[in-house]
Amino acid sequence: MIDLRSDTLTRPTEAMRAAMASAEVGDDVYGEDPTVRALEERVAELFGHEAALFTPTGSMANVLAVAALVVPGQEVLCEARAHIARAELGAHGAVSGLTMRTWSHPRGGLDLAVLEELFAPDLGPFFVRTAAISVENTHNFAGGTVLGLADLQALRAFADDRGAAVHLDGARIWNAHVATGTPLASYGAVADVLAVCLSKGLGAPVGSLLVGSAEQMDEARVRRKRLGGGMRQVGVLAAAGLHALEHHVARLAEDHEHARLLAEACGVDPATVDTNIVVHDVDDAVTFVKAAADAGVLLSAVGPRTVRMVTHLDVDRAAAQRAATVLAAL
Amino acid sequence: MIDLRSDTLTRPTEAMRAAMASAEVGDDVYGEDPTVRALEERVAELFGHEAALFTPTGSMANVLAVAALVVPGQEVLCEARAHIARAELGAHGAVSGLTMRTWSHPRGGLDLAVLEELFAPDLGPFFVRTAAISVENTHNFAGGTVLGLADLQALRAFADDRGAAVHLDGARIWNAHVATGTPLASYGAVADVLAVCLSKGLGAPVGSLLVGSAEQMDEARVRRKRLGGGMRQVGVLAAAGLHALEHHVARLAEDHEHARLLAEACGVDPATVDTNIVVHDVDDAVTFVKAAADAGVLLSAVGPRTVRMVTHLDVDRAAAQRAATVLAAL
Amino acid sequence: MIDLRSDTLTRPTEAMRAAMASAEVGDDVYGEDPTVRALEERVAELFGHEAALFTPTGSMANVLAVAALVVPGQEVLCEARAHIARAELGAHGAVSGLTMRTWSHPRGGLDLAVLEELFAPDLGPFFVRTAAISVENTHNFAGGTVLGLADLQALRAFADDRGAAVHLDGARIWNAHVATGTPLASYGAVADVLAVCLSKGLGAPVGSLLVGSAEQMDEARVRRKRLGGGMRQVGVLAAAGLHALEHHVARLAEDHEHARLLAEACGVDPATVDTNIVVHDVDDAVTFVKAAADAGVLLSAVGPRTVRMVTHLDVDRAAAQRAATVLAAL
Amino acid sequence: MIDLRSDTLTRPTEAMRAAMASAEVGDDVYGEDPTVRALEERVAELFGHEAALFTPTGSMANVLAVAALVVPGQEVLCEARAHIARAELGAHGAVSGLTMRTWSHPRGGLDLAVLEELFAPDLGPFFVRTAAISVENTHNFAGGTVLGLADLQALRAFADDRGAAVHLDGARIWNAHVATGTPLASYGAVADVLAVCLSKGLGAPVGSLLVGSAEQMDEARVRRKRLGGGMRQVGVLAAAGLHALEHHVARLAEDHEHARLLAEACGVDPATVDTNIVVHDVDDAVTFVKAAADAGVLLSAVGPRTVRMVTHLDVDRAAAQRAATVLAAL
Repeated sequence: MIDLRSDTLTRPTEAMRAAMASAEVGDDVYGEDPTVRALEERVAELFGHEAALFTPTGSMANVLAVAALVVPGQEVLCEARAHIARAELGAHGAVSGLTMRTWSHPRGGLDLAVLEELFAPDLGPFFVRTAAISVENTHNFAGGTVLGLADLQALRAFADDRGAAVHLDGARIWNAHVATGTPLASYGAVADVLAVCLSKGLGAPVGSLLVGSAEQMDEARVRRKRLGGGMRQVGVLAAAGLHALEHHVARLAEDHEHARLLAEACGVDPATVDTNIVVHDVDDAVTFVKAAADAGVLLSAVGPRTVRMVTHLDVDRAAAQRAATVLAAL
Repeated sequence: MIDLRSDTLTRPTEAMRAAMASAEVGDDVYGEDPTVRALEERVAELFGHEAALFTPTGSMANVLAVAALVVPGQEVLCEARAHIARAELGAHGAVSGLTMRTWSHPRGGLDLAVLEELFAPDLGPFFVRTAAISVENTHNFAGGTVLGLADLQALRAFADDRGAAVHLDGARIWNAHVATGTPLASYGAVADVLAVCLSKGLGAPVGSLLVGSAEQMDEARVRRKRLGGGMRQVGVLAAAGLHALEHHVARLAEDHEHARLLAEACGVDPATVDTNIVVHDVDDAVTFVKAAADAGVLLSAVGPRTVRMVTHLDVDRAAAQRAATVLAAL
Repeated sequence: MIDLRSDTLTRPTEAMRAAMASAEVGDDVYGEDPTVRALEERVAELFGHEAALFTPTGSMANVLAVAALVVPGQEVLCEARAHIARAELGAHGAVSGLTMRTWSHPRGGLDLAVLEELFAPDLGPFFVRTAAISVENTHNFAGGTVLGLADLQALRAFADDRGAAVHLDGARIWNAHVATGTPLASYGAVADVLAVCLSKGLGAPVGSLLVGSAEQMDEARVRRKRLGGGMRQVGVLAAAGLHALEHHVARLAEDHEHARLLAEACGVDPATVDTNIVVHDVDDAVTFVKAAADAGVLLSAVGPRTVRMVTHLDVDRAAAQRAATVLAAL
Repeated sequence: MIDLRSDTLTRPTEAMRAAMASAEVGDDVYGEDPTVRALEERVAELFGHEAALFTPTGSMANVLAVAALVVPGQEVLCEARAHIARAELGAHGAVSGLTMRTWSHPRGGLDLAVLEELFAPDLGPFFVRTAAISVENTHNFAGGTVLGLADLQALRAFADDRGAAVHLDGARIWNAHVATGTPLASYGAVADVLAVCLSKGLGAPVGSLLVGSAEQMDEARVRRKRLGGGMRQVGVLAAAGLHALEHHVARLAEDHEHARLLAEACGVDPATVDTNIVVHDVDDAVTFVKAAADAGVLLSAVGPRTVRMVTHLDVDRAAAQRAATVLAAL
């Protein structure tokens, strides 16, 4: 079976398992796990921020990241299909007590004229104020699309002009980085707080981080414990993350190439495939997914007439070609 | 001073005060206030629903109404300038733990094609599901605009097809009713739960209601007490509401006429003035508001280049004409 | 029927209705209701604090008062039968996100040695810290018992030594004041924030206030609006409160006398009757309540073998004597 | 250094690391991790319940466990020093919106007469109802004390009589099991939902589980994702847990013996040392802890005059004896 349902499915490699097995660990609730510290310092440095904080999931990283910027009675703006709006089970409202408003963009992107209409300045204590704008890069449900650096820098200026913060959901920022060559620090420079994930394209089994100022991370550490995310000898997982950062970033280019290969096989316009996700419109998604599965390729139905395929570490060139052949025949 | 800042500013008339002073009352927490019961029954009947529940404010009515339809982990969709999104201080997230996504419409209205894109069906436990769609009629921040019955009926069908509920924020439903002649029961028929307000155009000092099924109201009664809205001999306020329903609905037509008079004086397109609210674009809202105040007319700046004026019970024809003369001269 | 179920049941007198009918009003959300302002200033002055804030209910006053002192992740300590723990439907957790721990005291009072054991100092970010201690005076569910000023002053010193705040639930502080002669300002001096109620013994139909610093009240005003408690021309209710403060405080002595009269009739030790509440142990509360009702006296069953009777403004001496006769015969 | 601060400090053994390194894994969010499944099934079976759910921490297991039994507007009762009350940063209020009341017991135990006073039956919608009673076994902050099975069975009957649920915080239930010989299934039989921890005495680096009915676990799985606890290839951690269950339970007897050895060295009454925690009263905890550290033994100050020492997997007999010698000399 070639599993293209998600890049969260990757299993740790032998080398990664070895790194995990030999990781030096301590009690991270007491701040005593050296491998976690090393990972947090490494990721903060990559994005040019003061500090980072390890979390068990990307959802928790996003929840803590947004909560570092927005308090109850304030709102965060985001695109309507953003992961924080669609796929975190309402945690920003249910757990953090925040409000959200959304704009819609065909490729999950930004239009500052639209944002201008939506943005709520501080009109005094009767109104919800926009405290942060959140963008997702790459944008998962829009098909792994990249937000260009110029757009992000314009957003940064827009937010600065209005006293608002920027949250970057960078679960797949590594894919954007590899696809465009934009330095990670340039992404870091446009956001107050970022969330990044190790267990998607990078192939670590578990783990995400949020990145920001030391003060924000100190406060987030307390909130992380309240949410039940303060783990103990978690250096075993951080070791996988450090290994992934060293060995699995540049290779994302292969995933992107495999995605284009799949797109061509399906007749999807390759111009819509920025990274490792292909969105394919079909007559009947459920039927298509079933037929592909019968032929040995697992896909996701993400809408009644939409299937999604995602390339990743566990799909090598040969597997991608086999999958392309199967899909071309459907 | 002619105060056009809001229709919440009306003071009770002598006749209304007399009705309040002679109201029969009891302890409404124990369900023993006959005037509150009469008001709740009257309003439920007007909208063709089983039951209604009195609340101290329109905000609480909306919070309870939406919470009757949406639970944490689910979302309500609404227009981006809806009162529930903009002017309830984030209560739906902070207090009810819900999530919201929004669409934008120039007149606060609906476009089902847009809604179709936005709507989130039940995709299983990883995703936020759209449990309700909320519309506001008339739409305050869009300028008192009316949502037509055909649009509402189409929304009802759209929601039914998808297993979603409809919330109608009818704080100013009386204005829509008078402006269009649409029966209140027709509005009631398109919504699962409505919130309606007595202290805006109707001129009662305090009070709103939510309207829905008996079971929903029973549950909302408990939540109302939790929010601190379970008042005691509140028939003194309900009496004002009953008086307003009898005497102050039909006269809203005068407010609408006065609004058109003001619009003409300002050079605002009267086609944009559906009811009692006029939105006027100026060069500098703060300067304009100040100049009007100096000339004896109070307005609101609701944006850097936008002023709003609202007609109501305490602005009679003569006052409206005087205000029009002042505004025409600015 | 002589209704002794609660002192919340009082109906406004003719004089109070007249004061309400002639009240000068404005939009209190805009801070423009002169009667509300007068009431808030009067109550703040009575307790020697900077400011006060009107709320629709005693529950909302308590929720806002405690939230002014305790944030999520911190706790308030209170007696196990406190109104804030038992009768506010969990709002302090559900709405404010706070935690509570409790001590038990037979008369709803305080034992500083017990409190010493319970109190949680600031042990760093892994532990819940005690941010406030809440006391209720008089204590409703303990039977209208009075907390003496010396105890309160000792509590104040205890809290000051530990950097904690004191919340006083003074829904019936007027009864404590009249029963003991302790000045209201002395109660004010021991608390950071108080909640006081106008619609219990004082006989106003609706309304409570919280009392504290100007800054606390400004923040509470925003939270009040979020909870749906920001009413408009609410001077009609505030007028009842001002009337009650002038005319209905001293007369609480009569209620206390009537309560002792009832206690004697029932064979309840009068030493347990500090104010206007009598708690009577019987064989079967439901049967006893039914028998009393059949004889024209309404009581509450507050436990399987406990009935409660409460005297108030609508029970005059003759009624109290008739009730005593009925109860003596049971 | 001999680290007696906590049994959370244990580092995975070589054999445990090997088990982790060779664990078969899958995406547990999709329910596809065979090692997680095996662990969940094993733990459910041990306690005689239908199902279990893996969580990143004991705090999250407790938060989900209590939330499976208590909804906002209801309360859980627990001892005043319970972990859920003291050391979960208020999550039960802040995240789950629940209310808590507490009793105090010198050894963290139960007195049903006290509980009888505290218990709040269903008195209708104005009152908070006791939905669950929570006990902790062993009780961490009371000094690792054991709650006897007879007490737990009496609690079960007490709760059944009143329609309430029982939550058992069994973070250290393994210690109670080994200390008393009570079968784990007997503990399972007294609780509706249990939380158990793998990363304390059992020595796994990360991981806890809640245990209950299949339906409760299905709902908790959704809430777990909302809190950010839905991890991916987390079989690497579950493998440590399975290893610990096989190899590290019986050996807890050694920890208990070491604790008694330390107690004797300190002059602590061994009758107060039920399991692996010793609580020692000293003149000045901070000074004592410092002196011990200077002599190579790390302890915790858990109060101004109280130090705590905890034995665990990484403290063998020789280390325990060395520590005893150091402590005896202080």
